[in-house]
Amino acid sequence: MKKLDYFFRPKSIAIVGASRNPKKIGHVMLRNLIEGKFQGRVYPINPKTDRMFDLPCYPSILKVPGRIDLAVISVPAPMVPRVLDECGRKRVPAVIIISGGFAEVGNTELEHDCLKIIKKYKMRCIGPNCIGIFDPYSEVDTFFLPRYKLERPKEGSIAFISQSGALGSVVLDWMAMKGYKISKFISYGNAVDVDEADLTEYLAQDPATRVICCYFEGLKQGRKFFNTLKRVSRKKPVIILKGGTTQEGVHAVSSHTGSLAGSKQVHSAAFDQAGAIQAQSLEELFDFARVLASQPIPRGNRVQIITDGGGFGVLTTDWVIENRLTLAHMNKKILTTLKRTFPPHVVLKNPLDLTGDADVERYRLAIDAAVQDPNIDMIAVVTLFQIPTLTADITDVVSAASDRSDKPLIVIAAGGRFTEVLKKTLEDSGVPTFSYPERAAQSLRALYEFGQERKRK
Amino acid sequence: MKKLDYFFRPKSIAIVGASRNPKKIGHVMLRNLIEGKFQGRVYPINPKTDRMFDLPCYPSILKVPGRIDLAVISVPAPMVPRVLDECGRKRVPAVIIISGGFAEVGNTELEHDCLKIIKKYKMRCIGPNCIGIFDPYSEVDTFFLPRYKLERPKEGSIAFISQSGALGSVVLDWMAMKGYKISKFISYGNAVDVDEADLTEYLAQDPATRVICCYFEGLKQGRKFFNTLKRVSRKKPVIILKGGTTQEGVHAVSSHTGSLAGSKQVHSAAFDQAGAIQAQSLEELFDFARVLASQPIPRGNRVQIITDGGGFGVLTTDWVIENRLTLAHMNKKILTTLKRTFPPHVVLKNPLDLTGDADVERYRLAIDAAVQDPNIDMIAVVTLFQIPTLTADITDVVSAASDRSDKPLIVIAAGGRFTEVLKKTLEDSGVPTFSYPERAAQSLRALYEFGQERKRK
Repeated sequence: MKKLDYFFRPKSIAIVGASRNPKKIGHVMLRNLIEGKFQGRVYPINPKTDRMFDLPCYPSILKVPGRIDLAVISVPAPMVPRVLDECGRKRVPAVIIISGGFAEVGNTELEHDCLKIIKKYKMRCIGPNCIGIFDPYSEVDTFFLPRYKLERPKEGSIAFISQSGALGSVVLDWMAMKGYKISKFISYGNAVDVDEADLTEYLAQDPATRVICCYFEGLKQGRKFFNTLKRVSRKKPVIILKGGTTQEGVHAVSSHTGSLAGSKQVHSAAFDQAGAIQAQSLEELFDFARVLASQPIPRGNRVQIITDGGGFGVLTTDWVIENRLTLAHMNKKILTTLKRTFPPHVVLKNPLDLTGDADVERYRLAIDAAVQDPNIDMIAVVTLFQIPTLTADITDVVSAASDRSDKPLIVIAAGGRFTEVLKKTLEDSGVPTFSYPERAAQSLRALYEFGQERKRK
Repeated sequence: MKKLDYFFRPKSIAIVGASRNPKKIGHVMLRNLIEGKFQGRVYPINPKTDRMFDLPCYPSILKVPGRIDLAVISVPAPMVPRVLDECGRKRVPAVIIISGGFAEVGNTELEHDCLKIIKKYKMRCIGPNCIGIFDPYSEVDTFFLPRYKLERPKEGSIAFISQSGALGSVVLDWMAMKGYKISKFISYGNAVDVDEADLTEYLAQDPATRVICCYFEGLKQGRKFFNTLKRVSRKKPVIILKGGTTQEGVHAVSSHTGSLAGSKQVHSAAFDQAGAIQAQSLEELFDFARVLASQPIPRGNRVQIITDGGGFGVLTTDWVIENRLTLAHMNKKILTTLKRTFPPHVVLKNPLDLTGDADVERYRLAIDAAVQDPNIDMIAVVTLFQIPTLTADITDVVSAASDRSDKPLIVIAAGGRFTEVLKKTLEDSGVPTFSYPERAAQSLRALYEFGQERKRK
């Protein structure tokens, strides 16, 4: 077992600073672990009581009878070095320091003291000033946010590393609502020991992870991260969103994480050179991630649009072209077959407009044709679920076609609650969905460019 | 009463093609009118039966005993001229032709025949090939989409004109879910008589409408529309999204509405000159619309950011700057007062970071200070609702501050279901909300630029 494995697959977790007071971080963390599906042992640590949530509670980590794989620390900053030393003596391999009050508020010395203890005992440490880990596979969950306020996503293949805890957790909440799935989430805060490079390296080896997403504001060890990026991005797509790209943003970073944000141009050029994919916004980050995590690399850039609404067909066409992709020309033979089957008002072009009286069967025929057609590299399906003739089993037909397809297939569907329910069903079965054409086309471009980049290597 | 008023405030509506068959368009339309809150009389027209939904049904519009203000026609295209003639003889002032099968499929002659009858009787006509009108005030609702599949937005001040019916209705569905509100929706299809210029002119006079949004692919009478735009945009913001901006998109338009889309540059320059605001995507269209409909024009471009999450503060800063706005510098005296009240870890800069233990009271003080501060023109409030200390009454505090404020105030909040519920509450009370900083900053820019543009006139 590698050292970092203890963070994600511990057999036992100690919560140092566990509390009976529902307002305390240590209470919420303990409750989340117990109410979740974490299979290992949980040890609350608190000198003031001997039972908590029906579990024995220990005054110190040294008093715990069994082995501890992971210690999560949420005691006030000045007490952290003592707790770390106890962790070392107990031979705890992995520690997460949730507590803030270190370098980010100028207490660099206290942080340095922690590092010395970590090094002395050869532990690995995530944090301080972070919210730690959520792993939907092992159900390791160190968030101090209750589940009714912050939902957790299901098991998937997108890993997300975030320097900022609040930003990361908010995004996770949003992903859960949308039905987007993740492999691992890590908020690493001040990175006294484990940093974005270590985590990226680890995730590159993680079989559950297909795409690695990073949000950070500044890098402590730029060179180390770029070298890691170079290696990893050959294997798996790494998508980066950097906060603090304007001069004013850089200034804001210094008040937030105390790190040096550096110039946009320099970073952007370096990321590019290292083969990373750069996102301009949080939404774009996860649009790219969803497509890259679930869809095969296309052979070329020829997109076939299939729609039941002309207007959405037009907008999708515009965005496909704006993103330097091209419109596919369907194979003549396949077109002839479709022409024989479809009513005459269906527009057999690109966009292939099934029109407002399309039903599931019409979609099935059109998508199947596109999957088979050698002139088509990617398929963008617009399904306006609102039309009266389209029944809800369209999601089965689309996801079945997606399963059979060796081409990328994405769905565009805008609307209200009914639409959102159907889109979540599609997401669940691995079909990336988008509300509007621009994001769909941008994501297909990112996928295509990643494939081109990989070819060159 | 102006002629177009009969479309939006009719005292009586006849549904020509009403049906007992739930799969027929004429059935769904009739049901929507009856189940909605439309206060006027409804006359189903169908020769095959004499009662429908407990209403007397008439074989022809000529047999209806009372006056008819609006006739909605959904019979097959070849039958439309005869129905139109009957409408004329019955002196119906306003007619909506829902039916397709005219110029968009090459039947220009049939469409021309209709126009001749419309002119002969001096009626006004919307359509054909459209889904007509939804007016939340009068509850005129000619959509043939059931409410469970397509929700309707509440009464607001954003009008939306869409050439494409499907696109328009899908957007309406999405608006309803988000809590965005509208004054009127019109899908005008082939525009045989009433076109985008007539509607824009009408909405300029409509007291319920503060912002006019248009989606179209091509213009039949460009000059007429540009002249209208010029006049109207002096009074009210007109936001335009044009489909078919690429060569391929133009091609797709010709299969969709049969209109000529024209070059992007020419259109864009002309819209600009006419003082219209151009949106690049559907989401942007409604982001702009929500801010322009609800917020006052700012005196300048100095934005104060208030946040409980550092990362979101950094990203918001970046986007404020990217959009050519500037960061405000808070008044010294106000800063000193805040410093005395807030705990020392609150970052009293811009972004003003209330940090992850912020409560409602801290937000109240910070927002009130920003509302009063003469150095601040616009306020961007980031509320990550997930933090444990923030209670749901934050929405009351923010909307009360927004009511008092003579400055634009918008909210950025990303997350899952809990967040969406709170955001909808804010939208309901007139505070525009955004999931991510980029859209918020773009919308503040649009608002600022509209103000600058107006000053110049």
